[in-house]
Amino acid sequence: MIIGVLGAGQLGRMLGLAGIPLGLQFRFLDPEPNSPAAEVGNQIVGSYEDDDSIARFADGLSVATTEFENVPASCLRSLAVHVPVCPSATALEATQDRLIEKRLFSELEIPTPPFLPVGTPGDLLSALNSTGYPAVLKTRRFGYDGKGQWVLYDAGSTKSLIPSLDTSPDALILEGFVKFDRELSLVAARGRGGDIRFYPLVENRHERGILRLSVAPADGTTDVLQRTAEEYVVRIMQALDYVGVLAVELFQCGHRLLANEIAPRVHNSGHWTIEGAETSQFENHLRAILGLPLGSTEPRGFSAMWNVLGAPPVVNEVLAVAGAHLHLYGKEPRSGRKIGHVTLSSPDRGSLDGKLERIRVAAPQS
Amino acid sequence: MIIGVLGAGQLGRMLGLAGIPLGLQFRFLDPEPNSPAAEVGNQIVGSYEDDDSIARFADGLSVATTEFENVPASCLRSLAVHVPVCPSATALEATQDRLIEKRLFSELEIPTPPFLPVGTPGDLLSALNSTGYPAVLKTRRFGYDGKGQWVLYDAGSTKSLIPSLDTSPDALILEGFVKFDRELSLVAARGRGGDIRFYPLVENRHERGILRLSVAPADGTTDVLQRTAEEYVVRIMQALDYVGVLAVELFQCGHRLLANEIAPRVHNSGHWTIEGAETSQFENHLRAILGLPLGSTEPRGFSAMWNVLGAPPVVNEVLAVAGAHLHLYGKEPRSGRKIGHVTLSSPDRGSLDGKLERIRVAAPQS
Repeated sequence: MIIGVLGAGQLGRMLGLAGIPLGLQFRFLDPEPNSPAAEVGNQIVGSYEDDDSIARFADGLSVATTEFENVPASCLRSLAVHVPVCPSATALEATQDRLIEKRLFSELEIPTPPFLPVGTPGDLLSALNSTGYPAVLKTRRFGYDGKGQWVLYDAGSTKSLIPSLDTSPDALILEGFVKFDRELSLVAARGRGGDIRFYPLVENRHERGILRLSVAPADGTTDVLQRTAEEYVVRIMQALDYVGVLAVELFQCGHRLLANEIAPRVHNSGHWTIEGAETSQFENHLRAILGLPLGSTEPRGFSAMWNVLGAPPVVNEVLAVAGAHLHLYGKEPRSGRKIGHVTLSSPDRGSLDGKLERIRVAAPQS
Repeated sequence: MIIGVLGAGQLGRMLGLAGIPLGLQFRFLDPEPNSPAAEVGNQIVGSYEDDDSIARFADGLSVATTEFENVPASCLRSLAVHVPVCPSATALEATQDRLIEKRLFSELEIPTPPFLPVGTPGDLLSALNSTGYPAVLKTRRFGYDGKGQWVLYDAGSTKSLIPSLDTSPDALILEGFVKFDRELSLVAARGRGGDIRFYPLVENRHERGILRLSVAPADGTTDVLQRTAEEYVVRIMQALDYVGVLAVELFQCGHRLLANEIAPRVHNSGHWTIEGAETSQFENHLRAILGLPLGSTEPRGFSAMWNVLGAPPVVNEVLAVAGAHLHLYGKEPRSGRKIGHVTLSSPDRGSLDGKLERIRVAAPQS
């Protein structure tokens, strides 16, 4: 049985590592040669918009999926003629544009930060009248890891930014600045039959816009908070008839949760599940898209996931920490690039922080 | 960094799956094309005795190891000229011949069943005078999964067996029949610096000579029993200057342990460690041979490992059991052949038996 994955980065690599033990084989489509996933399957080097590449990719697949949310929906629609595609083009499209995504949250009565579409500089100024300062201007499409975002503190910073903006009609969205306590995320899997399993809420800490650390389960979350997040995810998954794993990023403000965005794929804040949960997000994504029973999402003790950014870690020092699990993606080190992660597992929460200090030293950012 | 593995079966496949996250790449040498490990690295199809194959295999390796104990020692010696080989040819040789292995146990004051070398039919009859009936006649080399073994119950069964025996001088060994309570095994890893980590004792149950079930940790073992087994393994590893993972199979007779045999490699009775221990036997073997710090061998709750023999399991039914983890090896089903295993994980011992009954039904032997 061959699984097709659009994108051959680290997410594809970890899908392959989770799926080979299930007897699955993998084929990846990615324009970048020698991608991380090429070590666990066959990579077709080609564009997501090239019919010939898509045809070669589709040939003989049991199911196709994606590790990359910005695959053109047209690619998924072409594929869907030949093979089941999970999640669907429609589900992916709903998450590719921040405005459409935020409107979906509103329709589903899921609280979000205030937001307004921005086309022209005039739109921006009137939107700022509505949100007040500070506010966050974002590109509607293709933003990631803090790219395509500008925090506007006052009229001066707005004025100096305006000349560099893309002010085509569908380019931008302005969001009210939310003073949140922390960022949480919920990763969940929905099977073909509509059954849903949730992992526990995770706390995510960013540095310079990039995820640095996830702690799972998040400290001090209540059953009510977990159930609220689950209820929001159920609404999203059912509205999109979603099949597979997705993550929702949430801002916690006191007892409230505001939805920030959906990642329609396995997610960096779920990497801890490889060692830290009974079934990993990668295996559950595969089980979901194949129509197999979903696996238990129970956490096994406590986990902390530390991203390895830019520079190779000192492997000896990482592995000397009891409960440290190293995941390298086979990528060339480059400043700020995610080239791996370390998951710390522990039966008790208390010992994680001390171990994390040792990992910070052994895997510093560059 | 490329790791060379002699043999490309399921053990090589699981070494690859454990090593890819560490950023390692794999090359396998095996005469059988399209072996299970070929999905996680490059396989060179060639004989262990062919100099050209060995040279192509060795080129550029960081370290070579084996997943198969019957690799000719000459192959390891040729390799060792070019690349570090762990475990060494000498260590492997000591385990390839049951008589040499049993004599090693005796030298190290590790109790074993009584044993005597058998060359001629006359040797056999005088050895039987010493052991009495029943006794077990075994080939000294290349026996596995109960093959190359005959239980002799009386003079009649001996007489009828004699004409079919290979009675060349170094062919056979006679062992006294031990009425043991159960079979246990201890899997351990020894690093390049001599540090040793032990997994807990595991109970193994066989059917028709093939391992069917391992329960980890074994029920009702005492600290004394665990320490006794560890002490035996320390003696063996130090005597052989062993680097890597090995398993020792032991017969438990009341409070005594009798050593049966050494497997100089990762072992079927250690497969549960993938989900059931903090660090798997596969990762610890790689850490050991690379001179990296060994990982924690702490068990995570309780595990039962069920071999999938002969027929493909009903995947839907296996995965419907909470805590079931399926491992298929990509091998063609064939009566009695090990084509996969299922590990059941549970935080409590009590729930394992009920789940195991469901797995027995979903993965029956053929």
